[in-house]
Amino acid sequence: MTHPSMQPLYDAYEPIASLLSILEVLHWDQEVMMPNGAASQRAEQLAALQATIQEKMNHPSLEEKLVLAESSEAELSHIEKADLRELRRSLERSKKLPPSLVKELAKQEVLAVHEWADARKKEDFSLFSPSLERFIDLKQQYADALRSEKMSRYDALLQDYEPGESEDSISALFGPLQQHVVELLQKIQAAPLKTSTKLLQGTFPAKEQERFLRSILPSFGFSFEEGRLDTSTHPFCAGSGADVRITTRYDEGEISDALFGVIHETGHALYEQGIQRDRIFSPAGTSASLGLHESQSRLWENMVGRSLPFWKHFYPKLQESFPSFQEIPLQGFWHAVNHVEPSFIRTQADEVTYNLHIIMRFDLERALIAGDLKVKDLPQAWNERFQQDFGLLPPNDRLGVLQDIHWASGLFGYFPTYALGNLYAAQWFERIEKELPQIHELIEKGELLPLREWLKSNIHCHGRVFLARDLCQRVTEKELSVQPFVRYLFDKYAQLYQFSS
Amino acid sequence: MTHPSMQPLYDAYEPIASLLSILEVLHWDQEVMMPNGAASQRAEQLAALQATIQEKMNHPSLEEKLVLAESSEAELSHIEKADLRELRRSLERSKKLPPSLVKELAKQEVLAVHEWADARKKEDFSLFSPSLERFIDLKQQYADALRSEKMSRYDALLQDYEPGESEDSISALFGPLQQHVVELLQKIQAAPLKTSTKLLQGTFPAKEQERFLRSILPSFGFSFEEGRLDTSTHPFCAGSGADVRITTRYDEGEISDALFGVIHETGHALYEQGIQRDRIFSPAGTSASLGLHESQSRLWENMVGRSLPFWKHFYPKLQESFPSFQEIPLQGFWHAVNHVEPSFIRTQADEVTYNLHIIMRFDLERALIAGDLKVKDLPQAWNERFQQDFGLLPPNDRLGVLQDIHWASGLFGYFPTYALGNLYAAQWFERIEKELPQIHELIEKGELLPLREWLKSNIHCHGRVFLARDLCQRVTEKELSVQPFVRYLFDKYAQLYQFSS
Repeated sequence: MTHPSMQPLYDAYEPIASLLSILEVLHWDQEVMMPNGAASQRAEQLAALQATIQEKMNHPSLEEKLVLAESSEAELSHIEKADLRELRRSLERSKKLPPSLVKELAKQEVLAVHEWADARKKEDFSLFSPSLERFIDLKQQYADALRSEKMSRYDALLQDYEPGESEDSISALFGPLQQHVVELLQKIQAAPLKTSTKLLQGTFPAKEQERFLRSILPSFGFSFEEGRLDTSTHPFCAGSGADVRITTRYDEGEISDALFGVIHETGHALYEQGIQRDRIFSPAGTSASLGLHESQSRLWENMVGRSLPFWKHFYPKLQESFPSFQEIPLQGFWHAVNHVEPSFIRTQADEVTYNLHIIMRFDLERALIAGDLKVKDLPQAWNERFQQDFGLLPPNDRLGVLQDIHWASGLFGYFPTYALGNLYAAQWFERIEKELPQIHELIEKGELLPLREWLKSNIHCHGRVFLARDLCQRVTEKELSVQPFVRYLFDKYAQLYQFSS
Repeated sequence: MTHPSMQPLYDAYEPIASLLSILEVLHWDQEVMMPNGAASQRAEQLAALQATIQEKMNHPSLEEKLVLAESSEAELSHIEKADLRELRRSLERSKKLPPSLVKELAKQEVLAVHEWADARKKEDFSLFSPSLERFIDLKQQYADALRSEKMSRYDALLQDYEPGESEDSISALFGPLQQHVVELLQKIQAAPLKTSTKLLQGTFPAKEQERFLRSILPSFGFSFEEGRLDTSTHPFCAGSGADVRITTRYDEGEISDALFGVIHETGHALYEQGIQRDRIFSPAGTSASLGLHESQSRLWENMVGRSLPFWKHFYPKLQESFPSFQEIPLQGFWHAVNHVEPSFIRTQADEVTYNLHIIMRFDLERALIAGDLKVKDLPQAWNERFQQDFGLLPPNDRLGVLQDIHWASGLFGYFPTYALGNLYAAQWFERIEKELPQIHELIEKGELLPLREWLKSNIHCHGRVFLARDLCQRVTEKELSVQPFVRYLFDKYAQLYQFSS
């Protein structure tokens, strides 16, 4: 039974959430379908829709309804309370941001992405730096508008992606994570067994890759009745509820990009398809955080998709689709898809060194936002840090500081969510091994639905009713920590590279 | 120079027009891309967006700005005056319609389309009739809310599609049109030459049809930088400005459906791509009327696309793509694509008998809206009239009264725009022959861009600055009449069927 004070609030919020979900459709369309020439027309459409959403959020009648519901908070269910909390959070954010700044940021994003793309192509950071400087200035204003006294600017930016986290709370995890990863990397590099990704190269027609992926996705519980798989320059997942769309790109000379990319995006998609369906247009009917979202994609991609049991079932099917694999034993394939080696590009990194990419970006972007690092010094800072952490010097900025679109899109505070995702994923997986002790046998038989059901009923269905850390405590009965992930990595790679963990 | 009283109005209207254009993207997505399971979620999104648009239209501040601009009307340019006129028209419409009726109509459409599809499949009109009765009742209420005293209900409905027209003004055209068409049909049926569509049947792989169409569309001036071609159950054109998307369906056993369907939709697309680009989000920055829109699709489909000069250039290319045509001479192909024969289905009718389909629907729907024809008597009325006009008795309702989706979608007053399109098209074409006397030679060389430019600068660019009839007078220096179309038909079919016109 919905509390009578909540119904008017739900009625008022539902159209706002519907309009927000239209943004997702437009975003997908823009990346996958929109004609090239329509970019500025689309920008106008998006600006109009976003402004309309903000108007609706800022309309006094919404806050009146919210205040009324808050006054009977004691009588509300925990879900209704969560809806109040989330709506209050959005409202405060929306009220504090000057509309002129919102507009300026939207404009700057279009400009900066364009200049970043150009700079990246020409491998010339100086073409991007004025735009990046301006963006950091705007993001500092943005943070100042939003932050409370005890928050740093970076803390304020984090709230957009990982509500409740702070520089300190994340540093407390990333410090030990860095140490353990470096230690593991040394063990791997010293191990007697050498691996390589060479045997993942060959000839893999895009059509055949797509056919294979479409054939295995239903095993994960991905429903084509409520979703799509398409091609785009950068893979992503968009949408919610009954309309969740994932994209990939096909490299016809290399199979792992699309293979693990699609499994990754499927993890995101299952989360969105799994949020309690009749709540997706409620304030807390969304994902708990980006880190939580990423925990789903990484769990499926790495803990399931790169595991030996998974391939015991699926490798014969892959061999059927791509006969060149018939000469390669399962063990060799498993080694190849888990090959660890420091490399320049984050999105192509293995699951060990990936964390170093993130921690480095976390440190650099904090320094940029704090004003401790100037944009003009960024390429050098990047290269020095990269040399230090990876033992490699990027030969150019395309393979270095210009590789990611995030800063050009104004996404400061976003990177850490990727590594938080790893931590959450491992903590879920330890719990799953406890509650579903036969999980590895199930995966070995290709039976992935019990895992999907566990994730749905323990994590997905709640949406943002619980914040990420609270959900972690609730589900795993433990605080979030680096230990499960470190244990997972050491166990897996000790077995793979044949050293003692 | 924009008049100072207009700028605030443009600023206020632009977001509304942007949101309206998002509806187009969502509509396209729904027909072409959306997963099946997402229908009810999409319905919520559309309802939220439509309600938001109506709220914005009905917001008192918009009318305040309009009144202010109207008070300085004497100082405005003719374009600004047109914007005032169109905004006033939309606003009055929006104010007069009770929101409850708008909602009811939207709901009824979903229901009625569903029941129509079911009834059509089962060839059982009785499954659709209660829903149609209800819809006619709602449309009568709708007409009563909108009409002025001197307008009939049907007149009021017409304004949504063909502003300025009335039952009387259309009847004055359709009366002579019917006579001439019947006379022409008798001549054709009595002619010594017999034609058939048989040689358009064969094996035409969808991929090859698509490849051929993509190869010829740029000749028409259709820009894939600002448009798309995709597949859907029912062909349509959606979007505006720099984002115009057409769809088709491929029948692998018959080539003319996709061939002329795509040329038809391209005519619509060129209109949308040709409206003065910086005005597409202004009140009069839209098409002048549906009849005007249809004049563009029919001009390209029939007057160009089914002409002998056109195929002199393009037939060798078609023969290259489909070698089975190599045995068929150009003349035979031209006869086949212009074969005239009374048949049951409007969308498959030739360009002569097509008009009889429209005039019959115009008469029947007027009687339905006036209450002179009861829904229960409609199938019989349909069949009697069909027998009388076509000399054929529909063997079932699927091939008769249930064939079109229009009435199930609440589109009463829409059908006449199709035949008006024929009249306008011929009147444009006579003018073009005068201003571009070399037009047939150009077409014969495959040079279609001069025609496109003429249409763009004389018709497209104006959008709705001039109402359809006024534009016709302005461009052709004559009132709209049936004469040019009748001349065109008689000349063409006398040549084709070898009788004296």
